[in-house]
Amino acid sequence: MMRLLLALAMLIMPAAAFADGIIYNVNGLTLDEDGNVVRFNAMIVGSDGRVVKLFDLDRRDDFPEGMEWRADMEGRTLLPGMIDGHGHVMGLGFQLSQLNLTGTQSLDAALAQVGQWAGDNSARWIVGRGWNQEIWGLGRFPTAQELDSVTGDRPTVLDRVDGHALWVNSAALQAAGITKDTPDPAGGRIERDAQGNPIGILVDAAMNLIRDHVPQPTPRESNAAFLAAQRYLLAQGVTATADMGTTVEDWLLYRRMGDIGLLEIRIMSYGHGVDTALEVGGQGPTPWLYGDRLRMGGIKLYADGALGSRGAWLKADYADAPGQTGLGFLSDDQLGNLMVRGAMDNFQIAVHAIGDRANSQVLDVIDELVDTFDGDRRWRIEHAQIVDPADLPRFGKHGIIASMQPVHQTSDMAMAEARLGPDRLAGAYAWKSMIDNGSLLVFGSDFPVEDPKPFIGWAVAVSRQDADLRPFGGWQPQEIVTREQAWAAYTINAAYAGFAEDKVGRLAPGMQADFIIVDRDPLNVSARQLRETQVLETWIGGERVWKLGEEEPN
Amino acid sequence: MMRLLLALAMLIMPAAAFADGIIYNVNGLTLDEDGNVVRFNAMIVGSDGRVVKLFDLDRRDDFPEGMEWRADMEGRTLLPGMIDGHGHVMGLGFQLSQLNLTGTQSLDAALAQVGQWAGDNSARWIVGRGWNQEIWGLGRFPTAQELDSVTGDRPTVLDRVDGHALWVNSAALQAAGITKDTPDPAGGRIERDAQGNPIGILVDAAMNLIRDHVPQPTPRESNAAFLAAQRYLLAQGVTATADMGTTVEDWLLYRRMGDIGLLEIRIMSYGHGVDTALEVGGQGPTPWLYGDRLRMGGIKLYADGALGSRGAWLKADYADAPGQTGLGFLSDDQLGNLMVRGAMDNFQIAVHAIGDRANSQVLDVIDELVDTFDGDRRWRIEHAQIVDPADLPRFGKHGIIASMQPVHQTSDMAMAEARLGPDRLAGAYAWKSMIDNGSLLVFGSDFPVEDPKPFIGWAVAVSRQDADLRPFGGWQPQEIVTREQAWAAYTINAAYAGFAEDKVGRLAPGMQADFIIVDRDPLNVSARQLRETQVLETWIGGERVWKLGEEEPN
Repeated sequence: MMRLLLALAMLIMPAAAFADGIIYNVNGLTLDEDGNVVRFNAMIVGSDGRVVKLFDLDRRDDFPEGMEWRADMEGRTLLPGMIDGHGHVMGLGFQLSQLNLTGTQSLDAALAQVGQWAGDNSARWIVGRGWNQEIWGLGRFPTAQELDSVTGDRPTVLDRVDGHALWVNSAALQAAGITKDTPDPAGGRIERDAQGNPIGILVDAAMNLIRDHVPQPTPRESNAAFLAAQRYLLAQGVTATADMGTTVEDWLLYRRMGDIGLLEIRIMSYGHGVDTALEVGGQGPTPWLYGDRLRMGGIKLYADGALGSRGAWLKADYADAPGQTGLGFLSDDQLGNLMVRGAMDNFQIAVHAIGDRANSQVLDVIDELVDTFDGDRRWRIEHAQIVDPADLPRFGKHGIIASMQPVHQTSDMAMAEARLGPDRLAGAYAWKSMIDNGSLLVFGSDFPVEDPKPFIGWAVAVSRQDADLRPFGGWQPQEIVTREQAWAAYTINAAYAGFAEDKVGRLAPGMQADFIIVDRDPLNVSARQLRETQVLETWIGGERVWKLGEEEPN
Repeated sequence: MMRLLLALAMLIMPAAAFADGIIYNVNGLTLDEDGNVVRFNAMIVGSDGRVVKLFDLDRRDDFPEGMEWRADMEGRTLLPGMIDGHGHVMGLGFQLSQLNLTGTQSLDAALAQVGQWAGDNSARWIVGRGWNQEIWGLGRFPTAQELDSVTGDRPTVLDRVDGHALWVNSAALQAAGITKDTPDPAGGRIERDAQGNPIGILVDAAMNLIRDHVPQPTPRESNAAFLAAQRYLLAQGVTATADMGTTVEDWLLYRRMGDIGLLEIRIMSYGHGVDTALEVGGQGPTPWLYGDRLRMGGIKLYADGALGSRGAWLKADYADAPGQTGLGFLSDDQLGNLMVRGAMDNFQIAVHAIGDRANSQVLDVIDELVDTFDGDRRWRIEHAQIVDPADLPRFGKHGIIASMQPVHQTSDMAMAEARLGPDRLAGAYAWKSMIDNGSLLVFGSDFPVEDPKPFIGWAVAVSRQDADLRPFGGWQPQEIVTREQAWAAYTINAAYAGFAEDKVGRLAPGMQADFIIVDRDPLNVSARQLRETQVLETWIGGERVWKLGEEEPN
């Protein structure tokens, strides 16, 4: 039997450890299931990749017997792997594998980088992002002709840094059939020269004129993007993540990575809408696959848009756009029907809701459904950014999970004040209020919208200050949470929110040995120092999968 | 480690045997790798589900030591599991669960059955298959009006027995917007009356005009259909099958069945076109999954249609339709490009080719590609029904596999004579010529086009007679093959054609213990008796998965 089982195990468990071992000489920290800090200096990892025991070891002579391997961590700090409660794995992968002009200081520098990338890559279309003509000091938009000079006739599409404009070349304009005669679409603008000819800049809704013509990535490109995302996440100490809106293509990719032993990170997958989840899971969630590395357990739905583009659905007008209240994507009945369809087959439901009206709508629907769908449902509201203070107590009911992203607060704070005005911020990014009202608080990054580095999010959560320590004292500082509360939101709570609390999120006998080695003790440094925590090693299932300075895992 | 591995094994191997055992008191027969018959009366099955040893055991006292279980077969005949070289698993599943007109002997009988089904089922659309106007002796196609008389305004779509034409009612034509003004699509034909009005028959590519409007089955319906197909195949003694044209939906279903341990039959999957295979496999075939139960290793392409609907692409006009030569689906360049795209990523290529012109085209393209794509390619031509005798020797080159279906010969013989005339039958269903020319002959049923019962196909292969023993002496009897040649085509050759010759197809040490118990010795009975062979038990991987008279496996 062993021969077949070993072969199967090779197929399923990426590089699993096959003998009990001991990790010692560590400053070990974990939360227990109640959120209390536990310290230890040695850990036995079983041959199954799970924790056998945490303990204190005074002398090396005290090693227990039967250990087949040892790892001396030289006194460094060991923590459970961090869990991102809301990310987009393939979105990150494509961002990492595409041309990135962020930080270019001039048009010439940007053009040189585009030309370099075009020479190094054979993709039919050149797709990238990150340009900002303001930083370049150009005083105007760049043009298609300028881009043509380095791309030739390969269609090229480059997102502005804010995602609200595209810089495209002549081949892309031609592929999309955009000419002098193309009218500006509602909500968008084609920048034109004095003769009315498109200059190569498409703003807002006009971006869609070309997006449908960009070829889908090939499986080969998708494979590379996935591996880039996985490696980046492991390097940040993220050992598990929710994947919010997994498509069928994404799912097939994760499976083939699992099949050939390249899936290392644990993915808690939420299907992109009800139909995706049913197509993948059939009559319910999939089992945990590949040694607890992949499961589609839930469904991602959208109640509204985003605050920056005034798509978030508000109860009252936008302060900076009177008469507008944003976009509710679905009627109450539509949202309820989708949630019922998913819940009938025991999928967990996670609904994106940014504005206070959208949050209120989702809470209303949950109120209606709880009698029919009792049991352990773990309803999730994603983002929950702007909540009417009157609705905050409702998050504590029915075991609703508030899945929030600390860094959105620092990125958005000026914009949120503009959109809402000073008097409607009491329920904005209201982390502590969520806890006080009895909701389970989960943290994540919404990568690639924000960088997935969890130590930045942790630092923001306890300071409500950005990298420059602004604003002084923190923005709406009454919503600061404790260091332990924020840590729980990135570990035990994020695991619970993904129905994985018996597998990951903390170190204890029987839990997966997912842990990271970092260069400081996050409970004993300032928030600024916490932000700069450097991950040194990342381990999953008792196996080291990433080490600082090594190109490939050991 | 064992705990995790056992858990994994439970997940992966449906009900695998976990201890060595002995099967004894059998009349055991298998082919060896060279196609020679081997007889034995006992077999040890290892705890890994593979054969350890075949041997003769004179007395029970001679049992080897260490056997943890015993199965006394009471002298019955044991054969390797049969392999269907060309089938459609979900097609069979839906046929078993949908309206099935197979075997109806007249238009009136078919209409009565449609009316009955419509009354018994509440589905919005009536979807079925299996009609054959040739058997009805109708001398024309049936019409929408005739269907309307029993369906009323419920849209109705009925596949012809060969899957190359649809019979639809007026409500379906209306739902799809097909009128007098709808042009015939490339590669398809809308049958029309003298005024040009659609009569309700859509041939080949014209079928797509309506298929997009038929509601997709729900995952729940698909799950049930799969399990029905699997159970039916196991009951016929089919332990492995090629699945020709697996869609993404099909693949996701097979995976979820594998994930929860309900996948028992072994599926050698050929993706529905290049894009499907790339989406599933990424940069190449998937590994064998679920203990050698599932692999997408190839790509199914189509060069032409079918003979019954005059979609098969002929070198000369149809004898019964002067001026028509059928439909070539792809130009030489198009076919070549698709085959290159698949072969570049090491997928096996299997091309449907029925008419002599289509077969010639595929042979031409293979001739062109072999220099670029050398190595172990195992090019497959599916059906190879009507081959120009001048092309027959070309099948022996480049290791081309002729994947043929014996029962098509008896179903088609009258129709083939009508379509081709008496003088063009020398290369029709030319099984022995394929062997004589050095091609590897593989047999299957093309289920659900024909019933997957392999013993019927085996009997036809050695007699070229139908169930009524017609025609006397066999149709084109020079193409009869030997009993052992036919058996090889259903076992060792079918395994080789699916890159599974080291796993299944024969019983020998190290091979999967896939076998069946039957009620007679197929090498010692008449062809008529061979056809009526009854399967008593079916075992896969050393585990009994079906037994006559038992609702569920042991």
